[in-house]
Amino acid sequence: MTQTADALPADPSPTRARVDAWLADFEDALTAEDVDRAAGMFAPESYWRDLVAFSWNIVTVEGRAGVGDLLRHTLATTRPHGFRVTEEPAEADGVTEAWIEFETAVGRGRGHLRITDQGAWTLLTTLYELTGHEEPRGSARPKGAEHGANKDRETWSERREREARELGYETQPSVLVVGGGQGGIALSARLRQLGVPTIVIDKRGRPGDQWRSRYKSLCLHDPVWYDHLPYIKFPENWPVFAPKDKIADWLESYTKVMELNYWTSTEAKHASYDDKTGEWTVEVERDGQPVVLRPKHLVLATGMSGKPNIPQLKGMDVFRGDQHHSSAHPGPDAYAGKRCVVIGSNNSAFDICGALWEKGADVTMVQRTSTHIVRSDSLMEIGLGALYSEEAVASGMTTEKADLVFASLPYRIMHQFQIPLYDQMRERDQDFYDRLEKAGFQHDWGDDGSGLFMKYLRRGSGYYIDVGAADLVANGDVRLVSGQVTELTEDAVLLEDGTRLPADLVVYATGYGSMNGWAADLISQEVADKVGKVWGLGSDTTKDPGPWEGEQRNMWKPTQQEALWFHGGNLHQSRHYSLYLALQLKARDVGIETPVYGLQEVHHLS
Amino acid sequence: MTQTADALPADPSPTRARVDAWLADFEDALTAEDVDRAAGMFAPESYWRDLVAFSWNIVTVEGRAGVGDLLRHTLATTRPHGFRVTEEPAEADGVTEAWIEFETAVGRGRGHLRITDQGAWTLLTTLYELTGHEEPRGSARPKGAEHGANKDRETWSERREREARELGYETQPSVLVVGGGQGGIALSARLRQLGVPTIVIDKRGRPGDQWRSRYKSLCLHDPVWYDHLPYIKFPENWPVFAPKDKIADWLESYTKVMELNYWTSTEAKHASYDDKTGEWTVEVERDGQPVVLRPKHLVLATGMSGKPNIPQLKGMDVFRGDQHHSSAHPGPDAYAGKRCVVIGSNNSAFDICGALWEKGADVTMVQRTSTHIVRSDSLMEIGLGALYSEEAVASGMTTEKADLVFASLPYRIMHQFQIPLYDQMRERDQDFYDRLEKAGFQHDWGDDGSGLFMKYLRRGSGYYIDVGAADLVANGDVRLVSGQVTELTEDAVLLEDGTRLPADLVVYATGYGSMNGWAADLISQEVADKVGKVWGLGSDTTKDPGPWEGEQRNMWKPTQQEALWFHGGNLHQSRHYSLYLALQLKARDVGIETPVYGLQEVHHLS
Repeated sequence: MTQTADALPADPSPTRARVDAWLADFEDALTAEDVDRAAGMFAPESYWRDLVAFSWNIVTVEGRAGVGDLLRHTLATTRPHGFRVTEEPAEADGVTEAWIEFETAVGRGRGHLRITDQGAWTLLTTLYELTGHEEPRGSARPKGAEHGANKDRETWSERREREARELGYETQPSVLVVGGGQGGIALSARLRQLGVPTIVIDKRGRPGDQWRSRYKSLCLHDPVWYDHLPYIKFPENWPVFAPKDKIADWLESYTKVMELNYWTSTEAKHASYDDKTGEWTVEVERDGQPVVLRPKHLVLATGMSGKPNIPQLKGMDVFRGDQHHSSAHPGPDAYAGKRCVVIGSNNSAFDICGALWEKGADVTMVQRTSTHIVRSDSLMEIGLGALYSEEAVASGMTTEKADLVFASLPYRIMHQFQIPLYDQMRERDQDFYDRLEKAGFQHDWGDDGSGLFMKYLRRGSGYYIDVGAADLVANGDVRLVSGQVTELTEDAVLLEDGTRLPADLVVYATGYGSMNGWAADLISQEVADKVGKVWGLGSDTTKDPGPWEGEQRNMWKPTQQEALWFHGGNLHQSRHYSLYLALQLKARDVGIETPVYGLQEVHHLS
Repeated sequence: MTQTADALPADPSPTRARVDAWLADFEDALTAEDVDRAAGMFAPESYWRDLVAFSWNIVTVEGRAGVGDLLRHTLATTRPHGFRVTEEPAEADGVTEAWIEFETAVGRGRGHLRITDQGAWTLLTTLYELTGHEEPRGSARPKGAEHGANKDRETWSERREREARELGYETQPSVLVVGGGQGGIALSARLRQLGVPTIVIDKRGRPGDQWRSRYKSLCLHDPVWYDHLPYIKFPENWPVFAPKDKIADWLESYTKVMELNYWTSTEAKHASYDDKTGEWTVEVERDGQPVVLRPKHLVLATGMSGKPNIPQLKGMDVFRGDQHHSSAHPGPDAYAGKRCVVIGSNNSAFDICGALWEKGADVTMVQRTSTHIVRSDSLMEIGLGALYSEEAVASGMTTEKADLVFASLPYRIMHQFQIPLYDQMRERDQDFYDRLEKAGFQHDWGDDGSGLFMKYLRRGSGYYIDVGAADLVANGDVRLVSGQVTELTEDAVLLEDGTRLPADLVVYATGYGSMNGWAADLISQEVADKVGKVWGLGSDTTKDPGPWEGEQRNMWKPTQQEALWFHGGNLHQSRHYSLYLALQLKARDVGIETPVYGLQEVHHLS
């Protein structure tokens, strides 16, 4: 990635010669507009994943027919050329892997290729930058000081203050990002670097409050190597699992030094799109004052988990204790010695049970459906270690490269790569799972045994990364009850089997809805339905109904509602996919043609 | 630096074999305690610069006699061993250069060696870390989350809050750093990582206010590659010359995310040292409340420039306009159309004249003595480019490596390397210098033609890095007057030749005193005199009287006053030398013996 073709030996190895030949043939076929020949260079079972470079979309096509279809629709406008390897390819088990670069009519791309003796097995193509709209960095970084004498000089701080004062009032942003968590922040940072006028709004008082407001023992469940933001990496002394207030402070500082136009204490009240003018009208309330914004694009970055799911139970109005959705639970401090019932058995449920128990509460977990648990250490070593770990860094794996390796694995077959990893974890932690089972915990490994990451991609729920609380359940410190909740009384939770759980506090760790629920609230139910379900792959597994869609629904790519976009996910996704969303927005902002191939169809409303 | 000896080819090149042999012989002689043999391996003209590794000091010894003396005093306690090259050495013009690593009785070192056919010409040895006290980073980074269930859990933010609440009240810091600019911040960050309880105090309201409070057009005169702080590098989009408010915001964010105990609005009133208890008593006022601190070590990081020099002129009390020292000048906003007289012709004088002219003031510069000017572009390309530039980064030069290359050049002969660079600049910008001379400007290149950087090291003054204002003087937009100021009247500045300069504003861009002036104010004149002059090399050039001292006086190393330290300089020095000062403080904090070789002698009081 950091090397250029110039740094490669003049006399190529046989492995490289093979890749060079494939790329040359491929380019030949493309230049000749011979789609069939190009498609024929792929193996019968093959996957081409394109992130914006060819498709102005995020799509995976399959097999020669899929490749042919993609090329027929995109070749004329993309005009790809200059395919080349950037470092020595590697060969193992009959698969040759190569890092590549290429150019298109409007930009520069990076990619990854796997070839077998049947042809290309996987191809990843990604747009990296738009020609003529490169980010000002490295040798193109801004000078900062304006040398010379100039009676009309405006200093950096004067310019920043003027921009902050005028944007949203005298001038309009091209992009409005609703939601200022890591997703909104990462995207806004990229848009700022690309020179796209952007405002990001959040209802909370400070950047990072999305984290600060959560229960106090919360730490990231993903490790530092996986969590870097664009542009400024966490330092070498950053903890593996950052405590919530520390990541909050980082996000706040990042927002400041990246010069984002971040409006705190601002809520979006209503938005509507005018097809004729190609403009949104968004009513927001900033510090209690109404402001009308007219951006060209509206990005919802309000949390990939969507709106909190709160069950509607009989008796919720008569219960005399406290009731919180997990997202609004303030932590255990007020509940020492109290009877606490936590409904749910996923990440938040476990974390909250653990924190309540530590504070000396009497805690019951109500498990409604089975949950997948992996121990944090095992997940780090077996699940992430090859790409995101200190060892990976030491072996030369950069964050950017790891992201592309990850992106190069087609979702259709990703579970096949995941299953053996979780088999390893099961074996390693057999004793742990035995103890959980003995305690009556309903455990699963996903519908096909593919474990946590596939659950995350498919449904965004159904798992717990164990950082210690599972043992509390296994050894009975946290009482485990299985069943469905039917009713609340003044002082208890009732289950359908008649179990009565006395309670001073009920926490609904009952998950979240689809992100298009935000669109329903902010825009209209009609637009939410037009866009359809957000997140998931169409894997036809629990909570991810088919048909197969090939990519995560509606994320970081055009939707059926023009100029409406969804952004979010964990820190890894916020970092990586913000680039492709930013490039799509930049291209539209400067009037580059962006013909979308394979626009998302709607199969489910939520 | 990033490679290890393991990564070197098993079959060494002749160049490497030569270095390997030298190192093996050297280690042999040291192990045999054969000082004469070890010293004999150096060339007759040779320099060994040691940063803390052998000497617990910052010293350069010269020739075989110097090497022998250093070894005789340090060998028994240092017990150096394990000398090895870390990457392929380079040979050019009869000089072989090698990066090395080694170990001592208490720590690990890095260094640089230049060998000629006469033996070692230059040797740099630096302490990098103390064994058993390594910084928690990379694979040793903190875990952050404390997994498991623990009823006595204290969260990260609770611990931080408790530390902030208790330190300085219920518990005492080991180190008190007075002055929270880049120097105090960089040092405190290192001490935090080393686990040395530290408070840094500053009288201003926010970290970064040292920069915010300066005149508004100020930008760094050093480029970004030279300016990185430890641990968190500026991002790729950071401007070459950061505007003052931007660097201020960075410092503020850095202070926060590095978790420094930074007391704002705090002034040190008086300090005294008790030899018996080995403790300072420092009276400070924090937010108007008196607090007594009892640190083991006191670091003055109040600005390498020392206290402002303000000339005492007849009539200063009757002048009816404004009078500012350059360090307190608020900028030009109030002076459009006003008559401004700026006394001085160095960096601040030019910057202030330029800003006043841009605002429409009538500006006169009073030049009292000659000044050295280099154009910013020329200085960047010719003076710094090889080590600190985008090109250097692209060629694999890291900041850390550049710092060590820089440190490897002995001060005694550094001017010899500098003179040709300034000859190049003179040639390149001949027209510029001709125009300056024609305007009557007194220009010099330093006593020996060695230019700006040697002036900085020797006297910390006497130059201007031209970012545009020199042209205003050359073309007469800013009026230039040469001579000595004798008196102020109600509305004018009088020179000794009788010239009368009507004035609404007088700016004294008249420089700064020695840093031990801070010690006089805070501790006593006795201690200030005991410590003597701070900064400068003893080069026997203007404002840097001899005798030759070999290193910068009293900076980052033990002084004649036990437990009193001086830290500061530009961002480069704050970054690089803070490591060595932090290691000296850490060693003392954990009771490692630190026998000091070659303690600074005092030849000048200020």
